[in-house]
Amino acid sequence: KRPLALVAGPCVIESELATMRQAERLMTICNALSLPLIFKASYDKANRTSIGAYRGPGMREGLRILRKVKESLGLAVLSDVHSIEQVAPAAEVLDVLQIPAFLCRQTDLLIAAAATGRVINVKKGQFLAPWDMKNVAAKIASSGNENIILTERGASFGYNNLVVDMRSFPVMRASGYPVIFDATHSVQLPGGQGESSGGQREFVEFLSRAAVAAGVDGIFMEVHEEPEKALCDGPNSIALNDLPALLATLKAIDAVVK
Amino acid sequence: KRPLALVAGPCVIESELATMRQAERLMTICNALSLPLIFKASYDKANRTSIGAYRGPGMREGLRILRKVKESLGLAVLSDVHSIEQVAPAAEVLDVLQIPAFLCRQTDLLIAAAATGRVINVKKGQFLAPWDMKNVAAKIASSGNENIILTERGASFGYNNLVVDMRSFPVMRASGYPVIFDATHSVQLPGGQGESSGGQREFVEFLSRAAVAAGVDGIFMEVHEEPEKALCDGPNSIALNDLPALLATLKAIDAVVK
Amino acid sequence: KRPLALVAGPCVIESELATMRQAERLMTICNALSLPLIFKASYDKANRTSIGAYRGPGMREGLRILRKVKESLGLAVLSDVHSIEQVAPAAEVLDVLQIPAFLCRQTDLLIAAAATGRVINVKKGQFLAPWDMKNVAAKIASSGNENIILTERGASFGYNNLVVDMRSFPVMRASGYPVIFDATHSVQLPGGQGESSGGQREFVEFLSRAAVAAGVDGIFMEVHEEPEKALCDGPNSIALNDLPALLATLKAIDAVVK
Amino acid sequence: KRPLALVAGPCVIESELATMRQAERLMTICNALSLPLIFKASYDKANRTSIGAYRGPGMREGLRILRKVKESLGLAVLSDVHSIEQVAPAAEVLDVLQIPAFLCRQTDLLIAAAATGRVINVKKGQFLAPWDMKNVAAKIASSGNENIILTERGASFGYNNLVVDMRSFPVMRASGYPVIFDATHSVQLPGGQGESSGGQREFVEFLSRAAVAAGVDGIFMEVHEEPEKALCDGPNSIALNDLPALLATLKAIDAVVK
Repeated sequence: KRPLALVAGPCVIESELATMRQAERLMTICNALSLPLIFKASYDKANRTSIGAYRGPGMREGLRILRKVKESLGLAVLSDVHSIEQVAPAAEVLDVLQIPAFLCRQTDLLIAAAATGRVINVKKGQFLAPWDMKNVAAKIASSGNENIILTERGASFGYNNLVVDMRSFPVMRASGYPVIFDATHSVQLPGGQGESSGGQREFVEFLSRAAVAAGVDGIFMEVHEEPEKALCDGPNSIALNDLPALLATLKAIDAVVK
Repeated sequence: KRPLALVAGPCVIESELATMRQAERLMTICNALSLPLIFKASYDKANRTSIGAYRGPGMREGLRILRKVKESLGLAVLSDVHSIEQVAPAAEVLDVLQIPAFLCRQTDLLIAAAATGRVINVKKGQFLAPWDMKNVAAKIASSGNENIILTERGASFGYNNLVVDMRSFPVMRASGYPVIFDATHSVQLPGGQGESSGGQREFVEFLSRAAVAAGVDGIFMEVHEEPEKALCDGPNSIALNDLPALLATLKAIDAVVK
Repeated sequence: KRPLALVAGPCVIESELATMRQAERLMTICNALSLPLIFKASYDKANRTSIGAYRGPGMREGLRILRKVKESLGLAVLSDVHSIEQVAPAAEVLDVLQIPAFLCRQTDLLIAAAATGRVINVKKGQFLAPWDMKNVAAKIASSGNENIILTERGASFGYNNLVVDMRSFPVMRASGYPVIFDATHSVQLPGGQGESSGGQREFVEFLSRAAVAAGVDGIFMEVHEEPEKALCDGPNSIALNDLPALLATLKAIDAVVK
Repeated sequence: KRPLALVAGPCVIESELATMRQAERLMTICNALSLPLIFKASYDKANRTSIGAYRGPGMREGLRILRKVKESLGLAVLSDVHSIEQVAPAAEVLDVLQIPAFLCRQTDLLIAAAATGRVINVKKGQFLAPWDMKNVAAKIASSGNENIILTERGASFGYNNLVVDMRSFPVMRASGYPVIFDATHSVQLPGGQGESSGGQREFVEFLSRAAVAAGVDGIFMEVHEEPEKALCDGPNSIALNDLPALLATLKAIDAVVK
């Protein structure tokens, strides 16, 4: 059985220096726990709640920084692609192309990403049932690329709230593809602060423990040295300082259930 | 006060002949009722449930047919745009550029569409609260384009089901922008047939009457001569033959509440 | 076809004087519109959010006042029953025994109420689908009492919020029983003010118009001379002064759709 | 910190013989794991979906059997109370009086139960937010009885479906009262089989692991030797044979997180 893996990094690339520092810090933490790490950072937040929000350094500069993370630290790197045009340049650098939840039904984007042969991580739309993801995966697999990861990030539950249905893990894992739990986006309160999304960082620990116990292949978390100063998704990011203890617990739970 | 308008047409362009015939039929029906009509048809269904589903004639051919509808019948025409690249060619033909619900948070697409100066109809994502649409509209208005329409098409309600919250109409109309009710997508059962979305055509009549009574500026409906033979969204499309009686009722309700 | 009827009154009996005054006022309003009226008032609020909240005058005193309304004004009267013991004394006075939403699945209560031969109005639980009400009605009908009314009062939609699914009206009316829309409880925000339920009085008008347009047999509304001073459910009650205009609109919509 | 406890037994008392046999079997299983056990069985299912469904042996006979379980095996026993009249006789036998979810807001029942001084286990209504339970607990505590247990059994999620929000455990535990996860009712599909509730027994294992990892004080499960032959709630009950392995896993997870 697959050991638990971690996908982690800041919500958005804030600077080369900050990104390198976060990547090194995560590497140290994961090495100490023998936990496989994929470094995650976005170069462009294409669908923020408000137009005035920080979006990131852009694709070119962002990919340059992610390449540096990859080459100097030897880490696998993951980032979002939002349009067909981004797929080819992103695939030159990224180990994993991530399809954002809102775009998980965009057939052309899925197929373009699949054609690169890279690993494709698709986030389940907040509007989809877990069993609907088999159709999404089939769109990717139809291009001959079976390197597919499915990520749970919460389902719409009334307005400005998400709920994580733990049944989604066994349902999606029945597909045979690895399934990841995005513990920090799942505690977002979408649009919940009027012009930005709120978040409930205090529940990340409980939900990630629950997900690992239900059985997942990996955990996805957005982290920051000082979440309250993060340029994006601060309210749901967790502090790097809190990560080692949480990961140790998750690893212990994973050992019980696998 | 704005009189009730109709946005209607087939889910997807099936052929030039079929499209022209449907447009003429709709024009005749709406003229008889003095109901403003915007003709709607998609040239590409970019996010169907399954990869094997019919997608349409493609943008170039689809726009050619819509131009013909526009020029020969004098109708305003509306269609979806799915990527920035589609915006410019689409804006040459279309009177209204429609942003699909799944894409309603994609900032770049909204801004590119806004920059054309065309009317922009944004469908509210199934994952959004009605008050979240003010941020979406603000992204468009930030480009100096205030020709904005907001469309309700149901909110996620558990799995494979949508619910229309009639409170969304007064909430969204408080923005000052016209609000349309998409009566046929709102009765979809997303993914509800395994590899395609189901639909509950039998509720279109009740929901559209309710929405007009709550107060809307227009109704959006996908229609077909023989819905059970439609190449897309048949289960929720309504038969052209049933349209005149339904529209007459809607017009009478509209007269009571406006 | 049944003409639209009104079930209305204060949430709770505040005093004999207030109750008589409200009943007379409602009678005058409904007579002017030729609208059948059933007077509604609770003698005991058995399930308020907090223990400190006002509950009413109790069953004995409450039924005495309702009997006075009935005898001196000739109005049909309706009130809740919460336990089997209440059924017999209540049935001596009341024309309609109402089963509260939380209790709509309590078999013994339904059967005891049915056995009185009175009309039974069952509120649909916030946790039920509209088609589940056929089983509830069957429990009543099994006692040989077919005088059944089904009332929609919103379905749970995330936390502390309800949504009215307008599909529920045609679904429940397919049972053949009259269906009523409870326009004021449907805009409650259950528990939404911490120790009491909030309410959105401003949406009563829109939802009741929508429900009548969808097609219902009656509208249920809690009213008060000064809702902000009401001892119960003030935030969702509507002012008696606003009632005539709203009812006139509802009657006009009803005439269009029936 | 409190060690994990188990509340388990058949949905309904099917016979004295079956009940005694199930209680002994559970006792043996729990002793082997040093797991505290409270034996649970209902004497009357007062709110079944359909009127024709089996309800149990009735209160008098049921309490006689539960007393025998208690006296001959030394087990604590728990059962539902549905009305004020049942409270006194039930409290003579039962260690824990359980308030059914649909009745969790019935003030008089809560207070009558509290007055017995017994432990009161209140199931959270499918229509309540976890933070709403503090008002429910306050109704009980107002009678001077602080022996309160709160039980999660799923929240309404669209129609005929429940979802377990793992955030509810830390939210409810913040009250200071022990919190139990009802793993078998949480996988019910209410009304999902037309005239009875369906169930998804296959998810009990995943949800109970998740809940223990999130942090709970106990697990509640309905069990049966042959669930497919159970007279009530068979589709969501789990087989006694499957219990030892599952409990061992839960205990190991509990040890990691406590």
